Amino acid sequence: MNVSMAASPKALRNGWPFKRMMIQRPRGTRDFGPAEMAKRRKVEMAMRETCARFGFGEVVTPTFEHAELFTLRSGQGIIDEMYVFKDKGDREMALRPEITASVIRFFVNELSTLPKPLKLYYVGNCFRYENPQSGRFREFFQLGAELIGAKNPETDAEVIALAVNCIRAAGLENFVVRIGHIGILKPLVHDEIKDSKVAAEVLRMVDKEDFDALGDMFDAKALPRKLFDRITALAEIRGEIELLNNLEPSEAVDYLREVFSVLKLLGIDDCQVDLGIVRGLDYYTGMVFEIDAPRLGAEKQILGGGSYTLSELFGGEPVFSTGFAIGIDRVVLAVEAEREISVAPALDAYVISANDDMRKYAFGIVTRLRSQGLKADVDLMRRTMSKNLKYAASAGARYAVIVGEKEMSKRSVTLRDMKSGEQKVVLVDELGVQIKKAEASKLVGH
Amino acid sequence: MNVSMAASPKALRNGWPFKRMMIQRPRGTRDFGPAEMAKRRKVEMAMRETCARFGFGEVVTPTFEHAELFTLRSGQGIIDEMYVFKDKGDREMALRPEITASVIRFFVNELSTLPKPLKLYYVGNCFRYENPQSGRFREFFQLGAELIGAKNPETDAEVIALAVNCIRAAGLENFVVRIGHIGILKPLVHDEIKDSKVAAEVLRMVDKEDFDALGDMFDAKALPRKLFDRITALAEIRGEIELLNNLEPSEAVDYLREVFSVLKLLGIDDCQVDLGIVRGLDYYTGMVFEIDAPRLGAEKQILGGGSYTLSELFGGEPVFSTGFAIGIDRVVLAVEAEREISVAPALDAYVISANDDMRKYAFGIVTRLRSQGLKADVDLMRRTMSKNLKYAASAGARYAVIVGEKEMSKRSVTLRDMKSGEQKVVLVDELGVQIKKAEASKLVGH
Repeated sequence: MNVSMAASPKALRNGWPFKRMMIQRPRGTRDFGPAEMAKRRKVEMAMRETCARFGFGEVVTPTFEHAELFTLRSGQGIIDEMYVFKDKGDREMALRPEITASVIRFFVNELSTLPKPLKLYYVGNCFRYENPQSGRFREFFQLGAELIGAKNPETDAEVIALAVNCIRAAGLENFVVRIGHIGILKPLVHDEIKDSKVAAEVLRMVDKEDFDALGDMFDAKALPRKLFDRITALAEIRGEIELLNNLEPSEAVDYLREVFSVLKLLGIDDCQVDLGIVRGLDYYTGMVFEIDAPRLGAEKQILGGGSYTLSELFGGEPVFSTGFAIGIDRVVLAVEAEREISVAPALDAYVISANDDMRKYAFGIVTRLRSQGLKADVDLMRRTMSKNLKYAASAGARYAVIVGEKEMSKRSVTLRDMKSGEQKVVLVDELGVQIKKAEASKLVGH
Repeated sequence: MNVSMAASPKALRNGWPFKRMMIQRPRGTRDFGPAEMAKRRKVEMAMRETCARFGFGEVVTPTFEHAELFTLRSGQGIIDEMYVFKDKGDREMALRPEITASVIRFFVNELSTLPKPLKLYYVGNCFRYENPQSGRFREFFQLGAELIGAKNPETDAEVIALAVNCIRAAGLENFVVRIGHIGILKPLVHDEIKDSKVAAEVLRMVDKEDFDALGDMFDAKALPRKLFDRITALAEIRGEIELLNNLEPSEAVDYLREVFSVLKLLGIDDCQVDLGIVRGLDYYTGMVFEIDAPRLGAEKQILGGGSYTLSELFGGEPVFSTGFAIGIDRVVLAVEAEREISVAPALDAYVISANDDMRKYAFGIVTRLRSQGLKADVDLMRRTMSKNLKYAASAGARYAVIVGEKEMSKRSVTLRDMKSGEQKVVLVDELGVQIKKAEASKLVGH
């Protein structure tokens, strides 16, 4: 039964193999403790609540799917980046690398007859089998939304507005919204470069903004320099919507202008136009957008989205959709780069009995505080007063409630502010209200 | 690119292979739509909030772990019930069948120096590779809690009290809490039956309450009939705590009595004693408990737990813990068997413009309602009034807000109650407050 894997340096110091090895979590995954989860849930809940305010309803789909679902969406190449396994029926399954494909599959399977537009959102874990690097993990968390069943400037603007409001609700202040249209640069490249592999490679370099490599490729393949200049000029159009005035009129340009004007009506007036957004996947059909948090440096993109059709790939009727996915991990990082995420104390009150006889009252008091909606805990270890006060402090309790014989004879307890050390005697009947009142006045005082 | 798997009868009717097959979700998994998720999240949130009130902090661990983590806890047999796959480093990974092992691993790896008791809870998806049957799915959802670092009647009672309060908060009214102690029946069996495999088989039959098979086994192995009678007599002790008075005094019996008396102080006075609870796993050390929802029939168990030591199996110091896991799916089923789970309407207001000129105001109004915290949507499809009202009804909106030219000239709109059909003209500045007021008065009226 000796465990030979995952030998940590600490275990080795402890005299392996005589002591059992510690089992470690899988490489590239994370454990989150209570302090971190409180912050993460606060950010997640704010974004969920925003989705609900925009009329989006939550869906949950399976964590693994037939691998084919993802290769149909993203191409065979994605197989190498997925966790793939066979089930006992020898079917190839994959841990989901993203959730849009699952939502559209669900739509095709069961929801296609619902009134349109259908507004859905999801929050879930995704998996990517790659070398862990800064800000990228093998299990990561996404919140995304899909508006299914329509495509016009209003639906696109609504989805962008939801995305921006989610990021705002998460508490991020410094971010850049860039909106483009696949129908400007992409058709130019495909019209002028007949070899579709070369055209795709060109678009990939534009997406990466690697114009040096693009220039080299144009030279190597003897592609027209004039085309290179047109492509880079378009790809570098990034900034105020007025930049579109320099372009030849086209359906795509008019469409983008309309998206910006509906966005303004929806209270969003600080977006940039960015014609260099190509996005990796072929199924985008029109508007595409991204949001960056510049403070995150190289891994600054926190959101990507656009309008697409995907349902016909999964056996449904073709249906226009617009959606996005937010990287929750990166949003949390970005907010924390601006300031600490404030969360409520883990405990409102920690109840301590002054001696053994008082213990039975302590249980009654903690039960009462909990039933009043307060976060309350009680000594479960029969500890001394000083050890209990130390535990209350380390557990982050705002108050200690001390149940003493003298006070209890008058149906009272001592309420101790753990920060200031101030103490006062409070009637048990008023304890919950007193704690809530103190909390409220502190919030006002902020 | 034709998809040959997952051919649904519908796709076949549609003329396969000329039309692409629909891709189905994996067998034994589920998709949840917005109406169902609203109910599930309500139940989950109520239980999460209960955990927080009891001073438990959330942890999140990876969805897959080294397979060894689970075989160490549950024995090699669990391999057949897990989704196991190799990663590129040829390490054997498994989708987690439960989360306790991960929490204790996390504790051993990183949290072992924190002040005790450490109170942790989790909510997550688990995976079991078995034939789907009623109420059992290949991906299912658990909420669980672990109190780590102590074992005494207080900590055990606290954990049971949390479990009971979670189930109450979920809204379930009819449930049975059964509490036993591994130290009464189990030592008897192991003392009297020296062959540990036979002893384990006996305990397994007791756990299943299969006393017929147990009798047959005693006959086949020529085990003493007197022992059979003692085992069945103990296993059938189920009911009021006073049943313990008939037993010989023992440490375990005294301990159970103390657990019941602390539970009473914590406001829980309707538990049964059940000495027939064995629970499958070897690492339970003392108190064990289960909660049933009798309405669910054969699959009635919604929660299981007890005190255990597990950390030393994963390379840590031995540490006493008490914990439980709740099957969220079954809790939701059990609550729904009692009554419908009520949730807030999906939309407070759906904003419709009476004509094209009014559209720009409609966007402003929906934005304002959303910023006031209301769930609001707006026509994105330039539909007719009657189609819009139909959509508002199907989307479950409480109110339609109609933006007409005449009313807007007086900064007003028409507010239509979608249930009663009543309409009134309301100032835009008062719209949000009016909707909130109506909602509040309805809640009072309930």
